[in-house]
Amino acid sequence: MSSTNHQVRLAARPSGLPKLSDWSFTEEATPAAGAGELVVDVSYLSLDPAMRGWMNAGASYIDPVEVGDVMRAGAIGRVSASEHPGFAVGDHVYGAFGVQEHAVSNGSEVFKVDPSLAPLPTYLGALGMTGMTAYFGLFDTGKLQEGDTVVVSGAGGAVGSIAGQIAKIKGCRVIGLAGGEEKCSWVVDDLGFDASIDYKTEDVRRALREHAPQGVDVYFDNVGGEILDAVLTRLARGARIVICGAVSQYNATEGVRGPSNYLALLVARASMTGMVVFDHAAGFGKAAAEIAGWMSEGRLISREHVLDGGVSAFPEALMKLFTGENIGKLVLRVGD
Amino acid sequence: MSSTNHQVRLAARPSGLPKLSDWSFTEEATPAAGAGELVVDVSYLSLDPAMRGWMNAGASYIDPVEVGDVMRAGAIGRVSASEHPGFAVGDHVYGAFGVQEHAVSNGSEVFKVDPSLAPLPTYLGALGMTGMTAYFGLFDTGKLQEGDTVVVSGAGGAVGSIAGQIAKIKGCRVIGLAGGEEKCSWVVDDLGFDASIDYKTEDVRRALREHAPQGVDVYFDNVGGEILDAVLTRLARGARIVICGAVSQYNATEGVRGPSNYLALLVARASMTGMVVFDHAAGFGKAAAEIAGWMSEGRLISREHVLDGGVSAFPEALMKLFTGENIGKLVLRVGD
Repeated sequence: MSSTNHQVRLAARPSGLPKLSDWSFTEEATPAAGAGELVVDVSYLSLDPAMRGWMNAGASYIDPVEVGDVMRAGAIGRVSASEHPGFAVGDHVYGAFGVQEHAVSNGSEVFKVDPSLAPLPTYLGALGMTGMTAYFGLFDTGKLQEGDTVVVSGAGGAVGSIAGQIAKIKGCRVIGLAGGEEKCSWVVDDLGFDASIDYKTEDVRRALREHAPQGVDVYFDNVGGEILDAVLTRLARGARIVICGAVSQYNATEGVRGPSNYLALLVARASMTGMVVFDHAAGFGKAAAEIAGWMSEGRLISREHVLDGGVSAFPEALMKLFTGENIGKLVLRVGD
Repeated sequence: MSSTNHQVRLAARPSGLPKLSDWSFTEEATPAAGAGELVVDVSYLSLDPAMRGWMNAGASYIDPVEVGDVMRAGAIGRVSASEHPGFAVGDHVYGAFGVQEHAVSNGSEVFKVDPSLAPLPTYLGALGMTGMTAYFGLFDTGKLQEGDTVVVSGAGGAVGSIAGQIAKIKGCRVIGLAGGEEKCSWVVDDLGFDASIDYKTEDVRRALREHAPQGVDVYFDNVGGEILDAVLTRLARGARIVICGAVSQYNATEGVRGPSNYLALLVARASMTGMVVFDHAAGFGKAAAEIAGWMSEGRLISREHVLDGGVSAFPEALMKLFTGENIGKLVLRVGD
């Protein structure tokens, strides 16, 4: 265990895209485990578009990160000291350990993971919150049915790539929206989507007309903005829109763009429903087991895009989510 | 039966508020009833904000009225001639007879009404599509529960005034949004709403904070626009927004205003769902009987705002819906 704990803290609430000056870099002595506590050496940090929202003040589905606090992040690590009866040194665990090298925890909402079943970063991808978000977004919020036409935005990203694959496994027609040829080819050629649309070069409405001639039954939305408005024009009767995120809007400085085609909900008798993965914690075990089964059968791929550089690389790594540079789940390696 | 049938036809598709020149006034010989047909002398026309949508080209939940056609309108009338086995001369009926004095019909989607049970205009109000919209919007789309905090916009209008009363009967706390003191007083003093907010003079967000301190469980939206955005800031966890209409947007010439606070759906795990009353036709009989029961018990008031002037007054009458001059259900008297 290193004796120094490097950390990244929120230094200021960003306006628009986070700047380097919105972060501070601190170091502390690595904490010791008190009674009932464990210390975790962080191995991999999860990078999520939702982090941008946590940096804002105000009520949301989770408390904001306060200025001066270590930035919140989901992470996989290894227990290096434990005074907690449920965890032993050497256990691999998932928890919200934050952007730091070592974290002390009381074990609440910390879950053991098994590195013999999957590489550690996969527990931030298909077998982690990413997979859970896709799974419960589709089934619980999206009420996915076999035969549905499903559109997924951010299809080359973490949640979108898993959501589309699950919909395929469930016998749906799946169309992925992504930016750039590489992601668009990947979701069709490697993930088995029926079609992809490159929103950077294609007319999305026209492409949706072509690929979803009967309309869209489920839209799994990770991006918001113009793409949400385009999909609204192609809803099938009774369509379900899952509002999982809106990465196109998180850095907006002039207010969020509302979906001006929302009256399509009336025309199509459709719904638009927000979801937050944490609500489904009771079902995570079963869902992860099902996803693991699909992975072992070769029917579902979890791709992680692993960056190096440790915690000091976090600010730059986060930006890749907003420039769309990642393919699959973006992860920052902090330790081994 | 008069031998001349005066009609109002769509002459041009309006941009923004309909102008007089968007209408043409025609007269024809009153039709005769062919085999299987009936002729109806129109008594009262229903005036509905949705009519503005029917005047636009393009796909919607119902075919547009074509330029040159008699304007579509729900109406109550009296059968003046019948070659249809299901209808006799003298029967009072509801149907989409259009803005004209006499209509010929094959009897499809024509329903008998009983003038001994309620005044004829009430069959366009609480006992007609107005009441059905409120009823199915609340129960089916809004999944109303006893104890919910319910916000209704257009509360002084046809559907809103009925929706709020039904929610009160079902044990909910009801807050009405309306324009002007007269409507705001009416919904509280006469209809029994718990509170009203005058959107023309009050800060809607602040007033909602005061009147719905625990948040809004069901929002029955007839107006869209700024008010929808304001209510989105006050959603309770699991809230249901019923998109029934958007009268503030129907005459927009620069595009509909999308709800920029729609990400509140995610924060609140809330839904926004469109509804169209015609989908619920199988349940109309039971719903109308229930509403009639509440009326006979004095628990629900159907107020109709009846205009005179015959079909030629239709263009001006329609405008009253967009200037908000009506209280309750706006109806145009055409005959007796």
